Amino acid sequence: MSRPGLILKLSCHDQPGIIAKVANYAAVHSGNVVELNQFSDKLGSKFFARFEIETSNLDVENQDFIDGFGTLGRSLHATWHFRRKPYRMRTAVLVTKTDHCLNEILWRAGLDELPIEITSIIGNRDNCMAIAENHNLPFHLIEMDGDRKADGFAEIRSLIEKQNVELIVLARFMQIIPTDFCRDYAGRIINIHHSFLPAFIGANPYRQAYERGVKLIGATCHYVTADLDAGPIIEQEVERAHHHHTPSDLARLGRNCERIAIAKGIRYHVNDRTIIDGNRAIVFPD
Amino acid sequence: MSRPGLILKLSCHDQPGIIAKVANYAAVHSGNVVELNQFSDKLGSKFFARFEIETSNLDVENQDFIDGFGTLGRSLHATWHFRRKPYRMRTAVLVTKTDHCLNEILWRAGLDELPIEITSIIGNRDNCMAIAENHNLPFHLIEMDGDRKADGFAEIRSLIEKQNVELIVLARFMQIIPTDFCRDYAGRIINIHHSFLPAFIGANPYRQAYERGVKLIGATCHYVTADLDAGPIIEQEVERAHHHHTPSDLARLGRNCERIAIAKGIRYHVNDRTIIDGNRAIVFPD
Amino acid sequence: MSRPGLILKLSCHDQPGIIAKVANYAAVHSGNVVELNQFSDKLGSKFFARFEIETSNLDVENQDFIDGFGTLGRSLHATWHFRRKPYRMRTAVLVTKTDHCLNEILWRAGLDELPIEITSIIGNRDNCMAIAENHNLPFHLIEMDGDRKADGFAEIRSLIEKQNVELIVLARFMQIIPTDFCRDYAGRIINIHHSFLPAFIGANPYRQAYERGVKLIGATCHYVTADLDAGPIIEQEVERAHHHHTPSDLARLGRNCERIAIAKGIRYHVNDRTIIDGNRAIVFPD
Amino acid sequence: MSRPGLILKLSCHDQPGIIAKVANYAAVHSGNVVELNQFSDKLGSKFFARFEIETSNLDVENQDFIDGFGTLGRSLHATWHFRRKPYRMRTAVLVTKTDHCLNEILWRAGLDELPIEITSIIGNRDNCMAIAENHNLPFHLIEMDGDRKADGFAEIRSLIEKQNVELIVLARFMQIIPTDFCRDYAGRIINIHHSFLPAFIGANPYRQAYERGVKLIGATCHYVTADLDAGPIIEQEVERAHHHHTPSDLARLGRNCERIAIAKGIRYHVNDRTIIDGNRAIVFPD
Repeated sequence: MSRPGLILKLSCHDQPGIIAKVANYAAVHSGNVVELNQFSDKLGSKFFARFEIETSNLDVENQDFIDGFGTLGRSLHATWHFRRKPYRMRTAVLVTKTDHCLNEILWRAGLDELPIEITSIIGNRDNCMAIAENHNLPFHLIEMDGDRKADGFAEIRSLIEKQNVELIVLARFMQIIPTDFCRDYAGRIINIHHSFLPAFIGANPYRQAYERGVKLIGATCHYVTADLDAGPIIEQEVERAHHHHTPSDLARLGRNCERIAIAKGIRYHVNDRTIIDGNRAIVFPD
Repeated sequence: MSRPGLILKLSCHDQPGIIAKVANYAAVHSGNVVELNQFSDKLGSKFFARFEIETSNLDVENQDFIDGFGTLGRSLHATWHFRRKPYRMRTAVLVTKTDHCLNEILWRAGLDELPIEITSIIGNRDNCMAIAENHNLPFHLIEMDGDRKADGFAEIRSLIEKQNVELIVLARFMQIIPTDFCRDYAGRIINIHHSFLPAFIGANPYRQAYERGVKLIGATCHYVTADLDAGPIIEQEVERAHHHHTPSDLARLGRNCERIAIAKGIRYHVNDRTIIDGNRAIVFPD
Repeated sequence: MSRPGLILKLSCHDQPGIIAKVANYAAVHSGNVVELNQFSDKLGSKFFARFEIETSNLDVENQDFIDGFGTLGRSLHATWHFRRKPYRMRTAVLVTKTDHCLNEILWRAGLDELPIEITSIIGNRDNCMAIAENHNLPFHLIEMDGDRKADGFAEIRSLIEKQNVELIVLARFMQIIPTDFCRDYAGRIINIHHSFLPAFIGANPYRQAYERGVKLIGATCHYVTADLDAGPIIEQEVERAHHHHTPSDLARLGRNCERIAIAKGIRYHVNDRTIIDGNRAIVFPD
Repeated sequence: MSRPGLILKLSCHDQPGIIAKVANYAAVHSGNVVELNQFSDKLGSKFFARFEIETSNLDVENQDFIDGFGTLGRSLHATWHFRRKPYRMRTAVLVTKTDHCLNEILWRAGLDELPIEITSIIGNRDNCMAIAENHNLPFHLIEMDGDRKADGFAEIRSLIEKQNVELIVLARFMQIIPTDFCRDYAGRIINIHHSFLPAFIGANPYRQAYERGVKLIGATCHYVTADLDAGPIIEQEVERAHHHHTPSDLARLGRNCERIAIAKGIRYHVNDRTIIDGNRAIVFPD
């Protein structure tokens, strides 16, 4: 985990020889590919890959290696991205009242399961303030009720810019994100929806699940797009439900799903194990 | 499983003393309650129960015991139903092309996992004819394409009546069931839908699942009502899906879910472990 | 959850009429059985049941109802136990270094998922002291290394007695419990073992699992008996493992299992949903 | 699935540049790597990979490509294996009485989920003879009771050699395989064990599971080695068990696990998705 290295994510039109060319580039400079995940999407004629390259023996500086890759990348007409390891992604966590997803994130970050640095916790309610304090993290209370909403999002945006936030996690943040915000931070906002999407889109999914009488309930971690609850899905979890479970029982069971799904979703994202492809997410799990 | 006995299903408005009264009735006549499942639905103020009563020491004839229960049942303003064990439910299986659900049913019936007697296999295609022959079961090919549909359903109805069919299983039967048919056989038609309902209602759910990029796919066994894919759910199963799975991979993975879900659904139904409550199914699993 | 009531657990030799008699006793005194779980163990000729009785309309005092039941209980040669609801079980949590199970318990207790009152956190290391302080809970550091072990357990015993502890939870407490301690607190000590028992009994189960190359790893919540890791199992959870998972990856994945399993195990125990039957646990889940 | 191509499995000491060299070799000859799975085992300093290479544009004959690889393979001190696609592996299925695993294999082979050609079904009981006949497959009844065992295995060996069998599937074949047989067909015998190994090694695992009171039961598909039930694990499945399940209920539930596990195990093996590494199996699932 902690050995210095580079992660390269790359996507392009499918064509023969991509792996050879990229792996060759690494090998020529004494980079060692220690993990390689690729996906040749035959239906879409696209190619996606993630290379994890150990760089302890690299014959050039990391930055030089990264810059030099550009020639190959452009010749493949690829989109690519390098990340240096170890890395802690600057992450803001947005919350409202419930704290189970926040607690999960803090606990896993503390155990180094999630390589993130939490820049701040932002709430439109103060319920999670004490948790932030216990963890010595700044808490920003931003009112968003009624006509305060636009100002509130402007304030969030200002915090995010000031704190160089790279990832925005909606940890049961009960506000609809404005379209321009979704667009400006596309691919950088992760949400947990408390249902097995695309079932039970919208409000109160546990109540909906109860009324439909489903035998499994779930949670979905996804990237946020302007289209509510329709963004690329990163991870889903389910749990058995029975007829005797009330909506609040389902909410209790669902919390387990939400915690697992959001933790995995963040882990995949910050380790560059996801590539967004239109409305789908390519995910290379670990 | 095989000891002679009675199964009593009962539902009524919730009120104190129901269990005492019913259990007492059994005890007074030397019936032994060997399994009891109940559900006091506090949200709906309803009571549901299933009693399995061993009758080897009963002090009256079974029929007398059943008849005599009427007085108590009426005093509770209950709906109830007795079933004598052992029992094999007369079952028609409707199919189109694919045979995996049919095979599963035949295999489990052969192992005595499903106490059913298959009266006939009815297909609007002949693909499953050989399977029926191998099992020495009558196969009825009924054309239903285009304007033959109404006649086809009339023919099915006639077969069902003639053969005293009690349960109609739609084992990947690719025809929409007419409203009057649903109504006339309400609570006696079980379908397998190849998605995790209510997600992906309607046609080609695996294609829909692929396009949505879900990370779990599923199958749903439910009672058929006139409202397409919206009947009471008996059982659901899911399996992990990945970005590299094509729609046909999802169909392959989904077959596992379909087979398990339909087998459990039938098993619960024929063992009287289900009670339909509006759009939900109370299910007491074994 | 919160309505006042009584929980009755009862076990006896199987015999006709038990449910009738018990339900009758409740009904006669205007107690309403709102949940009933029973198990007629045909292999062992034993009967086990849990009655949840709403007592708001009881025609006598609760204590009178409980005392009066003795006549019936003795006539059935039963073992039984009443619990008044709402109830918070006095619970001591024993820890060593790792905190994930402790955190899970604290978090769920805070959400009222576990009706317990934590009397103290007892550690043979000080790693969890800060967590205890954050939750305003007393932390007792008890040294147990080398020849301090016997004294340490004497001290734990003294704390438990002084604080009227009813349940002792070993939340990754890395000490073998002395035989007399197991015996004296039989049925009141719950442990989480970090493997899918009976596989990988003893030390370092994740290392064992890695070496065996299993494709699923798990955790087991069980009652503690003098026979190491062989007590009655309450709950087990598993998670997929792959060849690329190192022992520390397995430990990371296993933590999810451990947290879910210990939380469910405690929940079942404190809600009187478990009955110990020799080396097995009857569990009526909710 | 059906596009012509080559599968290359390779393992060697871990060293920089392996992927580059192999991918390069393919690219130079206009082979297109459409799927690549690799595993750099940092704990064991070993490298394992599976390349799926589309060969429609190959600039040489397949055999030439395969032969030419030898130079590279030897320079890496690797062990490697090529397979031409499409391929049907010649498979003998060994059975005793129960038929559920056999049925599963036949059904999936019929659906083309398992690219195998079943050479024969071999039984030491005649229970599965009718199934073989229904599928127009040769059935060999070989007596193995008492002192017929050695002769029986000699006969199996003779059949296997005569029929050019590549894979031997023990589909609930209730005979202990002799050491020399295990050794001579190492890596080519797949067994399904009806427990979650390493729990419940040996006879009657469902009875053992019942007596231990486990809350999950399982099945394990593994390669057979001389050490009973200790060979490399390919796949494991589990299902929930409850206190009311008798050993025969557990057997019923376990059949689901067995069928899924053996089907996946065979699928992975015949698609060259497994590499045996000592007592562990590297498995690249699809």
